[in-house]
Amino acid sequence: MAGKPDTTPPRGMRDLLPAEVELRDAATQQILAVYRSFGFRRIETPALESLRLLVGSEGGENEKLVFKVLKRGEDLEAAQRAGGELAEHGLRFDLTVPLARYYAENHARLPDPLKAIQIGPVWRAERPQKGRYRQFTQCDIDILGVGSAVAEVELLLATGEALTRLGLSDLTVRINDRRLLGAIARHCGFPEEAQGAFFIAFDKLDKVGAEGVLGELREAGHAAAVIERFERLLPTLQKGELSLEALPGLLGQAAGDAAPAFDSLAWIIQTVNREMPAGAQVRFDPTLVRGMGYYTGAIFEAISPAFPSSIAGGGRYDKLIGRMIKRDIPACGFSIGFERLVTILSEGGGSPAAPASAPLPRRVAFLVDATGDLGSALAAARARRAAGDLVSLEVRRKNLGRQLEALAEQGFSAYAVVESGGAASVKPLTARRGHE
Amino acid sequence: MAGKPDTTPPRGMRDLLPAEVELRDAATQQILAVYRSFGFRRIETPALESLRLLVGSEGGENEKLVFKVLKRGEDLEAAQRAGGELAEHGLRFDLTVPLARYYAENHARLPDPLKAIQIGPVWRAERPQKGRYRQFTQCDIDILGVGSAVAEVELLLATGEALTRLGLSDLTVRINDRRLLGAIARHCGFPEEAQGAFFIAFDKLDKVGAEGVLGELREAGHAAAVIERFERLLPTLQKGELSLEALPGLLGQAAGDAAPAFDSLAWIIQTVNREMPAGAQVRFDPTLVRGMGYYTGAIFEAISPAFPSSIAGGGRYDKLIGRMIKRDIPACGFSIGFERLVTILSEGGGSPAAPASAPLPRRVAFLVDATGDLGSALAAARARRAAGDLVSLEVRRKNLGRQLEALAEQGFSAYAVVESGGAASVKPLTARRGHE
Repeated sequence: MAGKPDTTPPRGMRDLLPAEVELRDAATQQILAVYRSFGFRRIETPALESLRLLVGSEGGENEKLVFKVLKRGEDLEAAQRAGGELAEHGLRFDLTVPLARYYAENHARLPDPLKAIQIGPVWRAERPQKGRYRQFTQCDIDILGVGSAVAEVELLLATGEALTRLGLSDLTVRINDRRLLGAIARHCGFPEEAQGAFFIAFDKLDKVGAEGVLGELREAGHAAAVIERFERLLPTLQKGELSLEALPGLLGQAAGDAAPAFDSLAWIIQTVNREMPAGAQVRFDPTLVRGMGYYTGAIFEAISPAFPSSIAGGGRYDKLIGRMIKRDIPACGFSIGFERLVTILSEGGGSPAAPASAPLPRRVAFLVDATGDLGSALAAARARRAAGDLVSLEVRRKNLGRQLEALAEQGFSAYAVVESGGAASVKPLTARRGHE
Repeated sequence: MAGKPDTTPPRGMRDLLPAEVELRDAATQQILAVYRSFGFRRIETPALESLRLLVGSEGGENEKLVFKVLKRGEDLEAAQRAGGELAEHGLRFDLTVPLARYYAENHARLPDPLKAIQIGPVWRAERPQKGRYRQFTQCDIDILGVGSAVAEVELLLATGEALTRLGLSDLTVRINDRRLLGAIARHCGFPEEAQGAFFIAFDKLDKVGAEGVLGELREAGHAAAVIERFERLLPTLQKGELSLEALPGLLGQAAGDAAPAFDSLAWIIQTVNREMPAGAQVRFDPTLVRGMGYYTGAIFEAISPAFPSSIAGGGRYDKLIGRMIKRDIPACGFSIGFERLVTILSEGGGSPAAPASAPLPRRVAFLVDATGDLGSALAAARARRAAGDLVSLEVRRKNLGRQLEALAEQGFSAYAVVESGGAASVKPLTARRGHE
């Protein structure tokens, strides 16, 4: 390796090979087709945002992971002299914070309500580990301007349909509501100002178990009687059999205050489950919390036996945009973890099938003489393209047999050796054993 | 505006509205369809690259425009203490330098030859001005591993076909060869080591005219006799009527050394012009130079009366990858300036028509009662989606007439008011006068 420059991509970032991009593109096109059929439309924001916006956005831990972009020229020199901030902008760490800014900036020119699709890369300076990258793709849909739960219904049905079409079977969307979690906190006796800390501890239930959550609450110094009340309630919440209808009975007065949330959640679950595609369902889960501080109502997370962690997550965030626009804009979103989805698909846990109306085109290699007259080869290639084939001109090598093997390994399914002025007789090409 | 945070995107960067993204997506899909039909396959590299790679890549002026990413944590502190480099990575400024790194890193796992499509954002900290952005999209095809001019033929035909399909008429691809320019330089008497400076001055002909070019050469201190010889040749080169066949007669011995380049260029022009779609042609232009230092053979640039500057540019760069991989890899690419293309299309200078087989789907609004039973609306929406419509649920407002007008303005072409349990009778929706 001596003398050869380092050509690895930056740590935690990836080069994608043609077959990998093709799987991702097929999944993207399938998701976009479903989302568009539900009336969503794609928007785009720049990769960079101001640090003022990114930091202080209730993006939780993600704010600490921002890649910052160095100021330039005189600005940088001035900052270095004054010991000031070296950066003014950063790479976006999610698509929700930019969406809020986008809506505040452009709402007068946007449809009302806005049903937005965003698909694109985000960056987080996380410690690289298996399946976790520093640049990765998110795929979000959001409905801005709809306060009614019709928005939640559309998000859940559209994402359920998209994931099912990709071949994910046995899909469950866990659903809860932040206002119900508030009722649980009140019932236990957590004061209003301790609710955020309670949610953060409760959110770790999947990772650290009941004892871990209770331990964190004790360490944080909450009143023993309050924690005890939560400890008595927790086993029932965890059982996974608690119905939405049974919960108010456990919470008493605290539930009464959250009655609209109970009604709305019941309506969403009933409406969605009647329409979900086969193999997908919504299920009430009173232990679902989700990490972001900005959620205000329904929250949801899609899981599948094909993957250990959630595949998609979202919820209602009615107060986030208001901070930028000085009036509240009801908002609700669902985000597919695209990298997780691609992992499932590449391990055979689904099938991003092309729509039945568009069969996969055949890849054909036209082997030509590099120095000859290409006229007949080009004309024949043009005709095959018009018929739907993907035709690549390949310069004919000395060892034809070996070249054909290599082409078959690359996914070509047919070939023709085209002599100057000759006809192109297309023959099938089947992959044989490799020649390593 | 008091108290409202600044929600504009970073300077020189843009938010894209749904209609803008849809135009871009239509153009992208059309280009991708053509490029795939020629056997090209999409690859992806990260947005960030090491500064070591970006700076010193013969990327010309672009190297100075790199957005650098601040080091983090301990690395940053150490750099600040030592007065060292604050950044290790930067945002890519084009797609060619990353492609060379990608090939050097991954060639053992890639098809040989590699016919790559890249489409994605690049970043340059240019002074923002009309039509020039700090984040913009490039769309490149490259063939790596083919030394024969079959590669140039495929690049020229594929890009000619893609731009023609997008409705660009009267497309001319100017073509030249760096080796011919070398012959011109030798004929005039520029020594080998002055060739680069001569090319840089000559490249400005379109902008500063003949006198400007000659003035720059004089200022640079080249020998008067050499400049005089070039001055005598220049009017003939500029006329636009000089044929490739006539040029050797003007250059004498210097042309003889470049005979293979003349033959290859003549073969490319003849082969491509026989196959180019109607309204597109390749034309020899001895004044075409192109800015990048890394070109070694044929160079080309697509122009159209619809736009003042070039729409696409490229050429052969047989030595660039070798610097990273320690053996030369013949390479050739053609890059569409996607933002320029979109400007032409949005001003009506083309038409990114959907293929005839896929008519544009109808956008239908289903107006529903926010609190009612959505069952029949959802079932009817599902049926219409299966029939190919894009169906959006919209919560019915008090002023139905006004809501329908707004929906028509947003591009909906049909609607249905769906009562609980009722049928969905879809009616056409035509845009009326706005209600400002």
